[in-house]
Amino acid sequence: MSKRVAILAGGVGGAKMAHGFQHVLPAGNLSVIVNVADDFELFGLRISPDLDTVTYTLAGIADPDVGWGIRGDTHRALEMLGRLGAETWFSIGDSDLATHVRRTQLLRGGALLTDVSRSIVAALGVPSHIFPATDQAVRTIVQTDEGELDFQAYFVQRGQRDEVRAVRFAGNDLARPTEAALAAIGAADLVVIAPSNPIVSIGPILALPGMREALAHAATTAVSPIVAGRALKGPADRMLATLGHEASALGVARLYADVVDRFVVDEADAALAPDIESLGMAVTVLPTVMRTNGDRAELARRIVMLNA
Amino acid sequence: MSKRVAILAGGVGGAKMAHGFQHVLPAGNLSVIVNVADDFELFGLRISPDLDTVTYTLAGIADPDVGWGIRGDTHRALEMLGRLGAETWFSIGDSDLATHVRRTQLLRGGALLTDVSRSIVAALGVPSHIFPATDQAVRTIVQTDEGELDFQAYFVQRGQRDEVRAVRFAGNDLARPTEAALAAIGAADLVVIAPSNPIVSIGPILALPGMREALAHAATTAVSPIVAGRALKGPADRMLATLGHEASALGVARLYADVVDRFVVDEADAALAPDIESLGMAVTVLPTVMRTNGDRAELARRIVMLNA
Repeated sequence: MSKRVAILAGGVGGAKMAHGFQHVLPAGNLSVIVNVADDFELFGLRISPDLDTVTYTLAGIADPDVGWGIRGDTHRALEMLGRLGAETWFSIGDSDLATHVRRTQLLRGGALLTDVSRSIVAALGVPSHIFPATDQAVRTIVQTDEGELDFQAYFVQRGQRDEVRAVRFAGNDLARPTEAALAAIGAADLVVIAPSNPIVSIGPILALPGMREALAHAATTAVSPIVAGRALKGPADRMLATLGHEASALGVARLYADVVDRFVVDEADAALAPDIESLGMAVTVLPTVMRTNGDRAELARRIVMLNA
Repeated sequence: MSKRVAILAGGVGGAKMAHGFQHVLPAGNLSVIVNVADDFELFGLRISPDLDTVTYTLAGIADPDVGWGIRGDTHRALEMLGRLGAETWFSIGDSDLATHVRRTQLLRGGALLTDVSRSIVAALGVPSHIFPATDQAVRTIVQTDEGELDFQAYFVQRGQRDEVRAVRFAGNDLARPTEAALAAIGAADLVVIAPSNPIVSIGPILALPGMREALAHAATTAVSPIVAGRALKGPADRMLATLGHEASALGVARLYADVVDRFVVDEADAALAPDIESLGMAVTVLPTVMRTNGDRAELARRIVMLNA
């Protein structure tokens, strides 16, 4: 298992998969390229939810109940911020707040998000590389019946209650993948697209100019985030449907058709294999639902073996 | 006791005195004009130690053991900041951190420190007015045998171990007192200079262009921060000595000679009364050491009575 693997990931689902790969690979062989189009500013601080979820998970300090935030964290600062009149719809624990304060300090001092992430990863002793997909400000904007919403307004503040009519990534035209992300893809024996939301987690990564071209040269395997027509977590299934895609593993495979060599579907979706194969990719049927740390490692092990 | 009182204050000593006045005056009759030359930036956040000490004390949430910070606060964020490589020589609790985050957010949004302070005072239900002496960036710099040090580097990071050879207030030439501070002094029946450090707490307030002139028109009483040759708290006695002043109530009275009508000394310093009177001010001998909330209120009551 000495392969080099690069994972494209969003938040909780991507973090779980990355954790499995970190377990089965030698230290340093895993690079996680993380969506930052969900990033936003709160209390004047730069919040990078997916980066933090991946980092905390790979550092072994993530809250196991929700998958994000820090295990056992308290919320005194958030309570005081509320008392002082700040909006508190986005939950931030006290230890977690420190990450945002530190990130904001380093960014204001001129560091790139890649530098900040490298610093935090090193400080927390994470044995993998974690890179933002881009150092530039790309922001997901969703079109709803209430008008355009910033991603976190849609996702957290309004609890995903709005139907998504369109999605755009503001700033994407002028953005580019980081050199570190491209180098990790270039050096990888295997690139894995995690079972994250294909529209708003993987979508902004693939939309970066040059990213699809970089992946075209790599051996790329995607894992379906839709199992039996349902998202494992979050609103991906509804979002696919309202955007005119099929809310199924097949619908996701179509979105990845030009960049993926192999598509992994859950055992529940074995019947979709022929239709997915007809898109020009190999299909592998595996148990993909990761309930335990053991599930994560076993899925990672089997994906690596497929490419041995 | 329906007088309007304005207090010039630094941190803990000024906060205690202000708390006593707040107790004996009708709500809204007390204005505290607070030193901000100790302010600094840490973790990219604007910290205003004296403003916060006064605000927390008047809100009834200050830590009673040390006089600053918030009672019962935890330090998870600081611990994480240390883990992430930030300097942690300045202790900040989790609730306290929220104040700095909120202040920084509002300042970056264009608010003046006066606006920020008003907002925090209102949010915490403080029945007094608390104003920064200036909205501009005045910073105390101390000259030591190790060279020039920022105030907090001298005061907290190096634990006041350096002898102070000179003090200057960077930015003071271009600064001015806030309109709110001048209005509070103009409307006050009595201005009180709290028993704060005369060099680095009261000094920067008095040094603001126009401040001594404003006080010349007011009935002003100062309370000595030096009792029997010793500072009640902090390095004021050593600082007076190394700067060529007498480390006594008389030495402090000399610094205030042009702005003070009455000087209150502790019973321990009754013998200094004739020398202080010869500076052209009335002297009153009172128990000035505030150990309990009752002491604070009693001292305030007696000072108000002196000016009845």
